[in-house]
Amino acid sequence: MALMLLAPIVGFITMLCVALYYSWVTRQDAGTPTMRQIASHIQAGARTFLKREFRAIACFIAGGAGVLLLAMWPLWQIAFGFVTGAVFSMVAILIGMNAAVRTSVRTSSAARTDPGKALTIAFRGGATMGLSIVALNLLGISGLAYLFGVSPDHPEAVSLLVGFGFGASLAAIFAQLGGGIFTKAADVGADLVGKVEIGIPEDDPRNAAVIADLVGDNVGDCAGRGADLFESGSDNLVAAMIVGLAFIPRYGWAAILFPLLSRTIGAVGAILGSLAVRGAGKKNPATALNTGLLVTAGFSLVTFYLLGTLLMKDVAVFYCASLGLLAALAVSGVIQYYTGMGRKPVAKIAESSLFGSPLNIITGISFGMESTALPIVIISLVMLAAYRISGGGLDGIYGITAAALGITELKGIIMAADTFGPIVDNASGIAEMAGLGPDVRRSADVLDAAGNMAKAITKGYGMACALMTSAVVLFAYLTELARHAGIEFTSFPDIVVNMVHPVNIAALFIGATIPFLFSAQAIRAVGLTAHQTVDEVRRQFREIPGLLEGRALPDYSRCVDISTRNALHHMVGPTVTAIVAPIAVGFLLGPWALAAYLVGVKIVGAALATFMFNAGGAWDNAKKSIETGKYGGKGSEPYKASVVGDTVGDPLKDTAGPSLHILIKLENILAITLLPLFLKYGMVWK
Amino acid sequence: MALMLLAPIVGFITMLCVALYYSWVTRQDAGTPTMRQIASHIQAGARTFLKREFRAIACFIAGGAGVLLLAMWPLWQIAFGFVTGAVFSMVAILIGMNAAVRTSVRTSSAARTDPGKALTIAFRGGATMGLSIVALNLLGISGLAYLFGVSPDHPEAVSLLVGFGFGASLAAIFAQLGGGIFTKAADVGADLVGKVEIGIPEDDPRNAAVIADLVGDNVGDCAGRGADLFESGSDNLVAAMIVGLAFIPRYGWAAILFPLLSRTIGAVGAILGSLAVRGAGKKNPATALNTGLLVTAGFSLVTFYLLGTLLMKDVAVFYCASLGLLAALAVSGVIQYYTGMGRKPVAKIAESSLFGSPLNIITGISFGMESTALPIVIISLVMLAAYRISGGGLDGIYGITAAALGITELKGIIMAADTFGPIVDNASGIAEMAGLGPDVRRSADVLDAAGNMAKAITKGYGMACALMTSAVVLFAYLTELARHAGIEFTSFPDIVVNMVHPVNIAALFIGATIPFLFSAQAIRAVGLTAHQTVDEVRRQFREIPGLLEGRALPDYSRCVDISTRNALHHMVGPTVTAIVAPIAVGFLLGPWALAAYLVGVKIVGAALATFMFNAGGAWDNAKKSIETGKYGGKGSEPYKASVVGDTVGDPLKDTAGPSLHILIKLENILAITLLPLFLKYGMVWK
Repeated sequence: MALMLLAPIVGFITMLCVALYYSWVTRQDAGTPTMRQIASHIQAGARTFLKREFRAIACFIAGGAGVLLLAMWPLWQIAFGFVTGAVFSMVAILIGMNAAVRTSVRTSSAARTDPGKALTIAFRGGATMGLSIVALNLLGISGLAYLFGVSPDHPEAVSLLVGFGFGASLAAIFAQLGGGIFTKAADVGADLVGKVEIGIPEDDPRNAAVIADLVGDNVGDCAGRGADLFESGSDNLVAAMIVGLAFIPRYGWAAILFPLLSRTIGAVGAILGSLAVRGAGKKNPATALNTGLLVTAGFSLVTFYLLGTLLMKDVAVFYCASLGLLAALAVSGVIQYYTGMGRKPVAKIAESSLFGSPLNIITGISFGMESTALPIVIISLVMLAAYRISGGGLDGIYGITAAALGITELKGIIMAADTFGPIVDNASGIAEMAGLGPDVRRSADVLDAAGNMAKAITKGYGMACALMTSAVVLFAYLTELARHAGIEFTSFPDIVVNMVHPVNIAALFIGATIPFLFSAQAIRAVGLTAHQTVDEVRRQFREIPGLLEGRALPDYSRCVDISTRNALHHMVGPTVTAIVAPIAVGFLLGPWALAAYLVGVKIVGAALATFMFNAGGAWDNAKKSIETGKYGGKGSEPYKASVVGDTVGDPLKDTAGPSLHILIKLENILAITLLPLFLKYGMVWK
Repeated sequence: MALMLLAPIVGFITMLCVALYYSWVTRQDAGTPTMRQIASHIQAGARTFLKREFRAIACFIAGGAGVLLLAMWPLWQIAFGFVTGAVFSMVAILIGMNAAVRTSVRTSSAARTDPGKALTIAFRGGATMGLSIVALNLLGISGLAYLFGVSPDHPEAVSLLVGFGFGASLAAIFAQLGGGIFTKAADVGADLVGKVEIGIPEDDPRNAAVIADLVGDNVGDCAGRGADLFESGSDNLVAAMIVGLAFIPRYGWAAILFPLLSRTIGAVGAILGSLAVRGAGKKNPATALNTGLLVTAGFSLVTFYLLGTLLMKDVAVFYCASLGLLAALAVSGVIQYYTGMGRKPVAKIAESSLFGSPLNIITGISFGMESTALPIVIISLVMLAAYRISGGGLDGIYGITAAALGITELKGIIMAADTFGPIVDNASGIAEMAGLGPDVRRSADVLDAAGNMAKAITKGYGMACALMTSAVVLFAYLTELARHAGIEFTSFPDIVVNMVHPVNIAALFIGATIPFLFSAQAIRAVGLTAHQTVDEVRRQFREIPGLLEGRALPDYSRCVDISTRNALHHMVGPTVTAIVAPIAVGFLLGPWALAAYLVGVKIVGAALATFMFNAGGAWDNAKKSIETGKYGGKGSEPYKASVVGDTVGDPLKDTAGPSLHILIKLENILAITLLPLFLKYGMVWK
């Protein structure tokens, strides 16, 4: 039990680091008055959006908590955990966003004199988000565990923690959808009029949508991704602890302690890693980021070995966790191949732009589809290897769980690197808008390139994470299903979801359509909002005299407002789909078929998300490679064709794709939470 | 046994009808010398392509037969059936193609004087294809059944028929991929230079790719779809008979006779339906097509009732078959909503063209994704209903099989209507190229609109068919698996593929990536070939003096040659993927995990194909609705944006989408064929 105290203690220490980083960043110079003014526009836009978004989320959470309280009575803990999960998620986002919007202007200010320092500032700003997620995850889950009386005598109380995961999931899906729709509608709208119709560069201050675009980088990439990782962190931990329940006969109390401790030590690793990232003079920023990653990974491997041998007395656990770490690296490598500048897919997409935009898009779709194969096969093989190494049968499940814990171990440092991306993106935008001159632009661009590399790594990481986590969450569902149904779950034939039973086939089919339906709604929302943004930007160019010549300023706030209103409106539809479908299946086809439904959502969601991420990323870099002067460079016909591809990819890679990762986990955690109801009232099919 | 004789007798009668239709059509007037000359270009192109394609297919079939003979020895019947299936499929295509290319010029000739007669000619030309498929299906399978000694004493010999299905599948995937790549590369290439760069209309004789495009309509839409339906006809029938093996204890020999007889009576229904289609004066062509469909459907319902009550003594079989028929109609209705002119999705896509091509594409992707939900849910519900009606448990499987037989009952008439599409498309192209004047164009356009409606119906039908058939083929796999593994398969718990076992999850994951990988290769092939076509058409406009002014003719044969060479080259890659993947899974993960793999291919393939079909169809009609004058009509900016969407959709809806339908079935039939090898040499995972 003393070991359990470690989690909240490390959580507090991590929060302390967050405070230190935050105050260090805000003490840095915020640049010229123009820069400060631009930054204040972005801050105001982001603050307004978050305020309205959080208010909307709060309503849904309150309603959901009420329903949960009534439906699950007397298990008040579910509703309580649900609210806690959502609130902790929003607090983490708030801290991270506040840091991010303050950091970017300071980064561009430092870029004027000391590019190395600019890197350090940007990274520490990002680390504020990364560490606060890890810390709040630990504090929330260990706090609730104390409150609900989880202990060696009452291990089964861990299943009450699902409420926390459910709350985090629901907050995350709203945050990712809302942020994703906001950012891409602004981005697409800005590009369609700016780059395509009028031919002014990215981030040009004459474009009315440019502030909305910069705000979007924060609320989409930063807040959205933060909520996603907060969610997968909690879901993964809660699920691993629930799976642990089935392993108490084998490992004792350590089966449940292991996930919590590995996460605790992960927080320490993230702190060490973030301290290792320091920019210095002319050093390549990518090297600095890699150093941080390697420090965390090395520390994780050592501690997994210690946990495996000392706590679990089973070195197989260490091998499996290491496999998970390796899988994350391998998948990242594949993603970098499919989306990296200078690699074959991006080069071919750029080349096909010579033949017009349709062939650019066809080629991108083709490589995007191809790119689904390797990551999924890698994860499948890791899953099989972990299963074998840990002895197969039911024991194999703990091996897969350990592999998933291995992947999530890097969460803190990855999130820090990921938030680094939008921060330097914003910094470079602020430099452009404030007219800081070519030198500053250049050093901002070097940072931006490092940011893009970080984004590619984190995307591969996110994918590996979502796939493995969803497997673990499925096993948690089965563990709970067996427990509630009174089945002693000691080997595989004890628990069977027959894939060839027509009811399960039907559930699988229905599950397979949900990621398509969900993505359709998310993508459409971006399209509809972009329509309005295009109209507004066109109107301002038409009606504001002197705007195109640079003698007048556009009204930025109108575009921010369009994005805000639409994002809040459209984030509801896909969420309703995501909630109603599994509930309907659970009641009408029963809890066993619901497992089949979850598998359907998972496999289609994983493939579709990978397709959308990689096609979008490749189109983006194909455009960038033409911008560097290939095939006629900016303004040429091939360039215009590549902009079409890039714009089509935007909602795929930044709205629907990341939301799908959340969807996969949300469906599972919702199923676990409501399982007692499905068992009680669900239809029974023979 | 006397009843079994019915199948070959009706098969011969149907072939007789084919001969009568063929000779009737060829006796019609073939128009002016110019028209004859254009038609002879198309015929020559189609003949050359088919000759080279069949030669390539023959090599693969011969190689495959050799391997099968060695691997399955002493079961020579598998290899023999394999060759027979492939040869029969190619003969059906040959007959149908010969009829189609002769019919189109006669249709445009008749359109000059009597639009009603033009309809009758076009439909009878199409019916030649539709009926020869049904007839050769019946003759091939019943002939092999006699040869292999299938009888009430040796019912298990039906499982030797899988070779026929496998041969038909392999020929079909080559024909569909080769034809699909040919047609779309020519189409995309012609459009990119003609419509987008130079601004000349569709089917303009100055475009060097225009003959290749018209040839493509025949080898892609007509030959490819024919091979697809021949395949699904054989697979469905063979699978239903194998499933019937498990039901001999319940229904006796009738369990196996029922599928064969229902198909036999389906042929009679198709003949009656095709006779009912007659154009007359000003009558709406769509009404005439619908009449044919209704006659066949009505006849089928009556005979299903008789078969159910008299042969099977179980009226539930009739209900299930009727449900299948209804499902086909319901899915067609959904497809017509998502791709129909004047319906919301197409209108919204057209509207979004006002905001540039990226939003046109985003909106199309969104509606395409949304459109996957309803068809798949409808099929799932029909499957559940058939399962329930027929008593659930193992008995429910026969109900689902009967529903699938209900769907396939319409195959002949649907295929006739489907071939009608490319015929009138070609007729209208010939009218344009021969400069026949606005009156003839107009009556050709009316036929074309009916052809598009027919295409929409047949696509929905094809989808419903592929989904249900793939379920039946899966059950056939399980029946065979149980038989070979010595499991007495009398209720569900006897045969279990546990969806939550990690090895099966991995197989499911791998299966889910195959449709993406396969589509990626097919789409890329179109892109690469279109590159070359664009280069060639551009070169001819540049180098042939007077071409653009209409004073010189382009060299059509060069574009035909580019499409031919590339189509034959690129049809190999996806096929290898489709063959290697299930064999690898079968050996490395074992035959039980292979069932999971098949389910993965099926659900992802179904959703992805539906997405590609409907997005492509909707983009096409959005473009057509702007062509009618909306948003500025032809030549306007929104029109250009809509052409981009249409061009992107081409390889999705006409190359990858239809090939996926074949893939789903090919994987299953391959698995059944090689099952004894997997059981003998496959790895065993505990």
